[in-house]
Amino acid sequence: MLSKFKRYLIGKPLTSEQLKHEKFNVLTGLSLLSSDAISSVAYASEEILWILVPLIGVLSYTYMFYLSIAIIILLFILVFSYRQTIDSYPNGGGSYIVAKDNLGTVAGLVAGASLTIDYILTVAVSASAGTSAITSAIPSLLPFKVIITLIFIWIMAVGNLRGLSESAKLFTAPTYLFIATMFIMIGYGIIKIKFLGYVPIKATLSYATTDISILMILRAFAGGCTALTGVEAISNGVPNFKEPHQENAKRVLFFLGLIIVIVFGGMSYLATLYQAVPNLDKTIISQIASQVFGNNFMFYLVQITTTLILILAANTSFSDLPLLLSVIARDGFAPRQFTARGDRLSYSNGIIVLCFISSILVVIFKGEAHYLLPLYAVGVFTSFTLSQTGMFVKWVKNKPSGWIHKAFFNGLGAIVTFVTALIIGYTKFIHGAWIVCILIPCFVYIMLKIKSHYIDTANQLSMEGQALKLPDSEKVKHFIIPIGGVNKSVLKTLNYAKCLSKDIVAFHISVNDEETEIIQKKWKQYKIDIPLIIRKSPYREVIGPLMEYIHSDEYPSKQDDIVTIVIPQFVVSAWWGNILHNHTALFLKSNLLKNKNIAVITVPYVIQHHHININDSFSKK
Amino acid sequence: MLSKFKRYLIGKPLTSEQLKHEKFNVLTGLSLLSSDAISSVAYASEEILWILVPLIGVLSYTYMFYLSIAIIILLFILVFSYRQTIDSYPNGGGSYIVAKDNLGTVAGLVAGASLTIDYILTVAVSASAGTSAITSAIPSLLPFKVIITLIFIWIMAVGNLRGLSESAKLFTAPTYLFIATMFIMIGYGIIKIKFLGYVPIKATLSYATTDISILMILRAFAGGCTALTGVEAISNGVPNFKEPHQENAKRVLFFLGLIIVIVFGGMSYLATLYQAVPNLDKTIISQIASQVFGNNFMFYLVQITTTLILILAANTSFSDLPLLLSVIARDGFAPRQFTARGDRLSYSNGIIVLCFISSILVVIFKGEAHYLLPLYAVGVFTSFTLSQTGMFVKWVKNKPSGWIHKAFFNGLGAIVTFVTALIIGYTKFIHGAWIVCILIPCFVYIMLKIKSHYIDTANQLSMEGQALKLPDSEKVKHFIIPIGGVNKSVLKTLNYAKCLSKDIVAFHISVNDEETEIIQKKWKQYKIDIPLIIRKSPYREVIGPLMEYIHSDEYPSKQDDIVTIVIPQFVVSAWWGNILHNHTALFLKSNLLKNKNIAVITVPYVIQHHHININDSFSKK
Repeated sequence: MLSKFKRYLIGKPLTSEQLKHEKFNVLTGLSLLSSDAISSVAYASEEILWILVPLIGVLSYTYMFYLSIAIIILLFILVFSYRQTIDSYPNGGGSYIVAKDNLGTVAGLVAGASLTIDYILTVAVSASAGTSAITSAIPSLLPFKVIITLIFIWIMAVGNLRGLSESAKLFTAPTYLFIATMFIMIGYGIIKIKFLGYVPIKATLSYATTDISILMILRAFAGGCTALTGVEAISNGVPNFKEPHQENAKRVLFFLGLIIVIVFGGMSYLATLYQAVPNLDKTIISQIASQVFGNNFMFYLVQITTTLILILAANTSFSDLPLLLSVIARDGFAPRQFTARGDRLSYSNGIIVLCFISSILVVIFKGEAHYLLPLYAVGVFTSFTLSQTGMFVKWVKNKPSGWIHKAFFNGLGAIVTFVTALIIGYTKFIHGAWIVCILIPCFVYIMLKIKSHYIDTANQLSMEGQALKLPDSEKVKHFIIPIGGVNKSVLKTLNYAKCLSKDIVAFHISVNDEETEIIQKKWKQYKIDIPLIIRKSPYREVIGPLMEYIHSDEYPSKQDDIVTIVIPQFVVSAWWGNILHNHTALFLKSNLLKNKNIAVITVPYVIQHHHININDSFSKK
Repeated sequence: MLSKFKRYLIGKPLTSEQLKHEKFNVLTGLSLLSSDAISSVAYASEEILWILVPLIGVLSYTYMFYLSIAIIILLFILVFSYRQTIDSYPNGGGSYIVAKDNLGTVAGLVAGASLTIDYILTVAVSASAGTSAITSAIPSLLPFKVIITLIFIWIMAVGNLRGLSESAKLFTAPTYLFIATMFIMIGYGIIKIKFLGYVPIKATLSYATTDISILMILRAFAGGCTALTGVEAISNGVPNFKEPHQENAKRVLFFLGLIIVIVFGGMSYLATLYQAVPNLDKTIISQIASQVFGNNFMFYLVQITTTLILILAANTSFSDLPLLLSVIARDGFAPRQFTARGDRLSYSNGIIVLCFISSILVVIFKGEAHYLLPLYAVGVFTSFTLSQTGMFVKWVKNKPSGWIHKAFFNGLGAIVTFVTALIIGYTKFIHGAWIVCILIPCFVYIMLKIKSHYIDTANQLSMEGQALKLPDSEKVKHFIIPIGGVNKSVLKTLNYAKCLSKDIVAFHISVNDEETEIIQKKWKQYKIDIPLIIRKSPYREVIGPLMEYIHSDEYPSKQDDIVTIVIPQFVVSAWWGNILHNHTALFLKSNLLKNKNIAVITVPYVIQHHHININDSFSKK
């Protein structure tokens, strides 16, 4: 039943050969990989205003203008330097790979850890912001913010478990609809004021209540930098593009830059014209949209497309983080399970972990993007810096033709992103960035530990110089059958064991004297010719007395002999069957296997699930 | 590491013989079993006012007086009829047993289901109300209501896992302190107004805004009846008392009735004198206490003792529900795991399930007792009714001396509680009682299903007329070893299998051609003389191809032969080891065992966890 449900949710399994069909062209790639960056406009301008408006009132809008220009310049530098990364890393040039290749393992892991944290935050932030777009339009949904956000995340997780290409198709339209809607809103919003003479309903704002300090400007800048998160997604995803990978990726990167400039710049300008004031219940975009369009169809379209693009942005993480984790895991720095492809060829374990952690974050931060944003962006800019520095080192080392020009761009990128990372870390530190600053080194440490564990395991399992030596067959034939009663399942096990060995004892742990007597009686009644050992267990424990018996002089095995425990286990065919029975067998097995000289045989006895008349329950009270 | 933590939390295991020491005398019994009933005063008067005040304002207090008297009369009837239950059921006369004995299985299960639901609700309601007592005194803790409530529940769960007697000792003082504090507050509260001439600061209340309807009175009565929940706890717990069980239980029941009359009656009277108005942030008790005592030590003492008694009330469920479940499970109507005693002789599975479900309820209902209360009490009164009716039928059937007198009391109890159950169900139906009305029949259905499953299983396992017949040893010796590589663990497994059988093949699922070639090469290199079968698996699946092979003509086993799958499994000694490896072996096992003709041998290879220098991670990149 569970597996049918899974099949319905995830779809039919795909063969490994079907992998190559799951690639994107420029159109689908732009919608799937750029949505993170494009959608940031839904909260970036707002973040700037959250910091400025309470302090300097009306003056905020002047500063926002300059800050927006600074952020757009930063974007241009990033786009140019990432074009070079795409050229050099046709198999995907995520910061992890670039940093590891050029700066060494630890730098790579720092980049990997930063990106991992930021991908998780992207899901939580974008899904929360997407919900805000809805609740701004329909305030009666405000109490259900957290639930709605969680549902979005789970839908995405399921979509991604179904496979990349399908979800890309599903999501292409909304991206372009969002872009188009934003273009219309910005264009008409400017025309309405400049040419049609509309006078916006402005909130009454005081003038500066404090002096403008550098720190404040920096905090606002750091807030606005969230607009740039997601730019690296394209260089990570190069191999996901159709041939020619690199050309397609660069085209997408170019369009992405262009769109951000227009939409982010335009939105900041509109916020100034309409003097929107941030609050938790109604987003800036929805405030502007309701003034530009009134409360009509277009207003709702803006809210709907904003929600959809933000969900797509979260989706970026769902397609990229599992890929990143699989790369890290293939290098041995993360649990190996992340390398396994699921039924539909997606990296299902990564998707599930991402879904789980981001859901927890949403619950903790009450689905409020504004509370999550201080944690955001530190990681992104740390990985930007490492990636750019890595590229810079690469050019300086290899010196290909035109390397000075290339090194200049990446060097500039490295310096600019480093400074930005410092600004973000410094200004947001007490508001939450400290958590990330602690987590990154922890992650790096754990990743190093995992690697050394894998190396150690491989060494211990390696057959280097090992010959195939046969143990004495007498040393293997000690069989012990733990029993809790005498029934058909036990009988089958006894018979099975007798075919393989002559050195068999049955072993019973006595917790209840009556039960033990019944077993002894049946043993005689059925004339079972296997010795029955009985041990009392005052603490109702099983493993202890059994191990004691094996190691006692009474038992004939020697130091290095392998003792085989044969466990009768009855298996209920219905899926709920296991809930209703004690799992002594299962528990026994997992504990016994910790001993290197014990092998465990499980002999199943399958209980058929009949559709029983419920009156049976009365027949034997 | 985990088991050390468990040991620290739960304490050293106790032997089964230590069971008899864990009993209570009158003092500890009163504190442990009556707290549910006594503590209800913390919300019962308040529930009456919640319904009346918004509708009829000042007039509410008049009606509350009459309602309180009605509820106290109901209490007396209950106390008298439960005395008779204690006399007749020295081994614990929970409604489940009484109803099942006298009215039949289904009636018993309905009582059992009702009680189960109400015990779970008791934990959620009492812990939430306990937190409210704290947040009323310290409003700055209001945002943390849910977390505080959860912590209370978890502490109780741990306390109960440690064992009954210890927790009884821990909790005796607070009960008596609460009772004493209430007596003082009621006494001084009355004196302050009647003799010292204090004029209370009354909230301005309008007169009736609507006419008083019968329905409204009934709703208020239903709300007040929550004061009576928990009265049945004592008759359930008879065997937990020291000898003489029954006398001690009856004494406790008598004192309980007396205390409720004084405290509930007194509190209702005080609420009238001080005209307290219910609101979600400040409980009625705390409003009254702050007027009676001012904001001094006594005020805080009232809040603290209220919290403690409410926690104790939740604790009643922790000691009673696992007991009830163990009784139901022993009859085969609930999963057998509920009958197992943990290390400390408590029914640990019941405790854990209760803790889990009540925590979820607290989260869903935001730790607000007022939202949970409509679900409450329907179950209690359903089980009251069944238990009383059961006793009535018992007297009428058996006709012992004085049966008319006894039947009268239980008959009266049955009628009164039945009417009350109807009132509660009717007036609270749309507010939440419908949930309970759906859940009870669902539970009963599931319990009947469980019973028939157990009967069916027992029939299939029973040896009735079964002789010990040995299968042909050749039919058992087909061994297959699934391998994913060639290493020491696989080698050990091959050697082990060779000692037991000559009919062995190794079986490899090829997902990756390179890997398969390496295995074939090593197979030759080490001159392994076991045939290696290779199968491609396009869907990266393992079980399917293996089963196909076993059933193909290529494989020598016949229809009824047992095929033994020998699985090499490496086991990492460190607790976190399992997180880092694929669980193919485990997964294989659980799926293979569903086939009745397949036995599974697990041959462990233990990997030692070395404390590795982290630099190892760099050595082999």
